[in-house]
Amino acid sequence: MLELTRGEYLLVYNSLSFVVAAMGAGVIFFLVTSRRLPDHHKAPAIISAIICAIAAYHYFRIFGTWEAARIGDSGDYTIDKALLNEGYRYADWLLTVPLLLAELVLVLGLTKDRTRSLMTRLIIAAILMIALGYPGEIASDAGAQTLWGVLSSIPFAYILYVLFVELGKADVAPAAKEKLIGLRYLILGVWGVYPIAYILGHDNPFIDDPATAEVLRQVGYSLADVLAKPLYGLIIVSIAFTLARDEAATAGTAPASETVTA
Amino acid sequence: MLELTRGEYLLVYNSLSFVVAAMGAGVIFFLVTSRRLPDHHKAPAIISAIICAIAAYHYFRIFGTWEAARIGDSGDYTIDKALLNEGYRYADWLLTVPLLLAELVLVLGLTKDRTRSLMTRLIIAAILMIALGYPGEIASDAGAQTLWGVLSSIPFAYILYVLFVELGKADVAPAAKEKLIGLRYLILGVWGVYPIAYILGHDNPFIDDPATAEVLRQVGYSLADVLAKPLYGLIIVSIAFTLARDEAATAGTAPASETVTA
Repeated sequence: MLELTRGEYLLVYNSLSFVVAAMGAGVIFFLVTSRRLPDHHKAPAIISAIICAIAAYHYFRIFGTWEAARIGDSGDYTIDKALLNEGYRYADWLLTVPLLLAELVLVLGLTKDRTRSLMTRLIIAAILMIALGYPGEIASDAGAQTLWGVLSSIPFAYILYVLFVELGKADVAPAAKEKLIGLRYLILGVWGVYPIAYILGHDNPFIDDPATAEVLRQVGYSLADVLAKPLYGLIIVSIAFTLARDEAATAGTAPASETVTA
Repeated sequence: MLELTRGEYLLVYNSLSFVVAAMGAGVIFFLVTSRRLPDHHKAPAIISAIICAIAAYHYFRIFGTWEAARIGDSGDYTIDKALLNEGYRYADWLLTVPLLLAELVLVLGLTKDRTRSLMTRLIIAAILMIALGYPGEIASDAGAQTLWGVLSSIPFAYILYVLFVELGKADVAPAAKEKLIGLRYLILGVWGVYPIAYILGHDNPFIDDPATAEVLRQVGYSLADVLAKPLYGLIIVSIAFTLARDEAATAGTAPASETVTA
């Protein structure tokens, strides 16, 4: 049982609802925007729309689980942690994290072999990272929490290695290089929030009060998901526009944004 | 507890439902309209559609919270203010106000550097304005209400300064100048309703009866949102059409609205 104040309860409640709205807005934006890109650059925008749709659904469910986990009478803000279903977040990530990495590889327009090799390894690592994190998230024993947390960090480290070392050598069009560098740091910064939120969800040496830790964890995951999905998608799509414009300029035609829908 | 008359209760109830419908209509209108604009003028219409979609979602939720906050038996119109969730409005504004300012900057078609500089400062100011208002809205202490209200007014004043002083000097096409001036006064007039509604939501020297104040506050916010979102979007989109037509005329072709969908 977690005894929250009204303000704490509402902060989580409103954060979850905020994410539903942000993801829904993302779906519309990315679908409409995909139409303005030339066909061979559409994939990242379409994948971003799908990612936001999956997340909107799961946040709608998480919102419901947060309402349902509130027990006691109307003046009381007690959360029964056993009624909170953490599975929604992991089901979401199991679908969305491989897609986030896939769209990153796709937007770069590398050779077919290179794309396939990078994509296979990144997707397997992403699935392992999420699948190994879940048993730790629901474990009640501190040893198991730490063990699964550490195991899940191995594929996470591998993903960072691929993004920073292997992709650093990839033959990316100069026009997109700067945005790609920014994107990698967004991944590093934002994905770093997840392990912190994971640690706060369990007995930890940083925050004594479990109610405060739970509020920070929920708000942290929510904020990180907004940055890691719609904001990340925005940058990916802007890379796609840069590349399309660059190609059009090289081909001696008008800027891509004006010709692609013709 | 607020004792409302049946008429007062229904006035708020119907206002909230009206906004859901107005926003939903806005989504359809702006999506369809975006197709008639040339690609480089589409952004404002698409952003308007997204703003209306976000608001439709939140008003659907606010409507639900208004129904849920009514307690007692069927003949009774008593509202338990503790059950009203003010967070929905703030979650909505946190997403929509930066978008409203972004589309205003985008429609002007300024240089890339100028657009980026204006947009960054306006968006940061908008986020600060909303984030500083929320603690005051949910505070029960009059001192805290005033403090956060005043703090939130500082970025609001900064936004007005940018819109009226900096944008006044911007190099905007003469065809759009007049509408831009009208739009700024719409912002000044409509955004001025929000602080008034904020004051009415708390102990205030203007209206004694807290039930009346709550009704005015809810109806005021709702009306202001309809003016600040779909109506504002209409003016922005008409600026986009004016600019597109102007460009097409300069290029010696038929009016933009008649050629772009070909």
